[in-house]
Amino acid sequence: MGLVVQKYGGSSVADAEGIKRVAKRVVDAKKNGNQVVVVVSAMGDTTDELIDLAEQVSPMPTGREFDMLLTAGERISMALLAMAIKNLGHEAQSFTGSQAGVITDSVHNKARIIDVTPGRIRTSIDEGNIAIVAGFQGVSQEGKNITTLGRGGSDTTAVALAAALDAEVCEIYTDVDGVFTADPRVVKKAKKIDWISFEDMLELAASGSKVLLHRCVEYARRYNIPIHVRSSFSGLRGTWVSNEPQGDQQVEHAIISGVAHDVSEAKVTVVGVPDKPGEAAAIFRAIANAEVNIDMVVQNVSAASTGLTDISFTLPKAEGRKAIDALERARGVIGFDSLRYDDQIAKISLVGAGMKTNPGVTAGFFEALSDAGVNIELISTSEIRISVVTRADDVNEAVRAVHTAFGLDSDSDEAVVYGGTGR
Amino acid sequence: MGLVVQKYGGSSVADAEGIKRVAKRVVDAKKNGNQVVVVVSAMGDTTDELIDLAEQVSPMPTGREFDMLLTAGERISMALLAMAIKNLGHEAQSFTGSQAGVITDSVHNKARIIDVTPGRIRTSIDEGNIAIVAGFQGVSQEGKNITTLGRGGSDTTAVALAAALDAEVCEIYTDVDGVFTADPRVVKKAKKIDWISFEDMLELAASGSKVLLHRCVEYARRYNIPIHVRSSFSGLRGTWVSNEPQGDQQVEHAIISGVAHDVSEAKVTVVGVPDKPGEAAAIFRAIANAEVNIDMVVQNVSAASTGLTDISFTLPKAEGRKAIDALERARGVIGFDSLRYDDQIAKISLVGAGMKTNPGVTAGFFEALSDAGVNIELISTSEIRISVVTRADDVNEAVRAVHTAFGLDSDSDEAVVYGGTGR
Repeated sequence: MGLVVQKYGGSSVADAEGIKRVAKRVVDAKKNGNQVVVVVSAMGDTTDELIDLAEQVSPMPTGREFDMLLTAGERISMALLAMAIKNLGHEAQSFTGSQAGVITDSVHNKARIIDVTPGRIRTSIDEGNIAIVAGFQGVSQEGKNITTLGRGGSDTTAVALAAALDAEVCEIYTDVDGVFTADPRVVKKAKKIDWISFEDMLELAASGSKVLLHRCVEYARRYNIPIHVRSSFSGLRGTWVSNEPQGDQQVEHAIISGVAHDVSEAKVTVVGVPDKPGEAAAIFRAIANAEVNIDMVVQNVSAASTGLTDISFTLPKAEGRKAIDALERARGVIGFDSLRYDDQIAKISLVGAGMKTNPGVTAGFFEALSDAGVNIELISTSEIRISVVTRADDVNEAVRAVHTAFGLDSDSDEAVVYGGTGR
Repeated sequence: MGLVVQKYGGSSVADAEGIKRVAKRVVDAKKNGNQVVVVVSAMGDTTDELIDLAEQVSPMPTGREFDMLLTAGERISMALLAMAIKNLGHEAQSFTGSQAGVITDSVHNKARIIDVTPGRIRTSIDEGNIAIVAGFQGVSQEGKNITTLGRGGSDTTAVALAAALDAEVCEIYTDVDGVFTADPRVVKKAKKIDWISFEDMLELAASGSKVLLHRCVEYARRYNIPIHVRSSFSGLRGTWVSNEPQGDQQVEHAIISGVAHDVSEAKVTVVGVPDKPGEAAAIFRAIANAEVNIDMVVQNVSAASTGLTDISFTLPKAEGRKAIDALERARGVIGFDSLRYDDQIAKISLVGAGMKTNPGVTAGFFEALSDAGVNIELISTSEIRISVVTRADDVNEAVRAVHTAFGLDSDSDEAVVYGGTGR
């Protein structure tokens, strides 16, 4: 066998029982003849408790000290996991992000990994140990300060270590059985995907699927590290994410991988924009200067009678206030009639590389929505994705209708969901 | 002004309110024109909670991983304190033991500091920051593993940093007002000591006084760092510990510094030991091989009729079982009649450099005990200390009687005690 990197989220190590269960699973992988490197998140609610403490002493905790605080969480879980493994008669050593060689830039609270130098990890596993590494954290190249990677950072730690160690696979253990053709909480007949390409997984992640974060999949694709997403509770085979299916990995849905939805966005419409060169640029420059990330953008056909047009875009609800303020400030420069802000929207996306060569997909998507009585407000497409914005109230019905229309429904209600997410 | 190292124990930073109170005190020291380095312990019960977690996953948590776990505690308190200070408008940076250059040997759970290389701390304070350092922890010279210093380790961190940074003073903030002439919980009329020499403080610490640990005082004496022990609650001036009194430090009790007592020891008597060369050596070799630390040792005058003698010694109760087992195993080699184990004893010690030149002290000590009806079981003396072992039941009365006899009682019931101890 080879080298396996396993990552366990906070819900998998939420208490002593969880840690002992994970320890058994790790030891099993070692007994199977693998070298094993384990990345852990903080236990269950630890991070929230630390944030709560921080807010009690400082109104807006941030920066270097906030990272120093939060990284205590993984330190606790990794040390406990190492102890639990030793208690099963195997040798284990835990390493902080810094000790593991996770080198990042200096942007505290959302640092990016710029290099991984896993010399100590390599030595440890070559000596026969199971190496436990703190997820979510690193050390800055300049200043040697402790940094954190932001939401979903532990998955990225795992993939980055897998790449640096040339691992055979990066196993992401979570509280669901894998990646599904739709959110199983919405679509009872959603199916677990056996294999999915990096490309399709990236689109799903960008479209609201929460099992894997976009950044982590991007990293895995760049270094061609197969990811196996699976449940730490059930022990079942999960979803493989890679360039090409291997061995017995089934590719059931050649055309469509799945349906994703996202209710975390809002829609801003800039009404009455003069239809002349530079107007759109001025709007989105104002937004960008406010450090707001936007998603879909649509410009209406301008009305010939007025020479005015409307521009709509979507963005995370959390950044709505910032965007509106930025546009109001730039109103004199841009010149528009009014702003409309709508946070009662949902985005529904159909993802699949097969749609490149299947011209009927777009039509089928719109027909399914129409048959379900769902009105489309915006449309945006990529080569392997179609997204629409609808009313938030319609989202569940719309997702189910599309899921059924593209033949994704399973024969049984197989979807199993456990609730809770790691970081 | 100069450079001040302040240390705050776990009870001083037990919750957000405590951390904010400490932050104010730290900022005050900075406003007074000092460079300030702060050493903190883990918050209140954090360490106990971590130990409890460890025991849930491993029956006897120990070694490298246990240190990794426990050091999360100071990481939390130091980051929160830095945030609280920044929230008061001052710059602060927190540093782990490793980042602060606290280099130790490789003995996990009770490592000893072998060097301090505080380059990052120096840079940080020279840039105008308040530097916060995690107490109780370091990094091993070989292997670069995280270590902890054992009980009272944070005090030692503070003194060692003060020495390495050539600080003017090491302020140890605690939950009592300073060092008292006796334990104020026992002697209501105990007085706070204004100044005490390193030597007397060392004897008090070795005799049961818990305010400062022996190791920390020893370190301060070696590098001649004045310690100021004071309350983080009252803000009152506390007790200065140094080579010589400075300025207005009062030396009230020229002869006697204080009375200490200790009920944590037990007494072992080896009965019927042949009175010939090598017997005592055999006994204490057996004890030493079991890694038991002993305190007082007394050999009775042997009875001429039998040629047998008794040897008694005291040791921590926690090590009683180990010592008895070791002696029983060596019984064949040593040759003795029986062993007696007695854990209902107390040690009472009178400490003061003045007794070197005052021959009446020993007599006065024994008279005071006699007048109080307290029986003496063992006696042991050093140049500046007399210790006796009595029944545990007699300890409070004995301490009060000696305190009064040597004129240590204050005129008022001034002693203030807050309860709880840091680590």
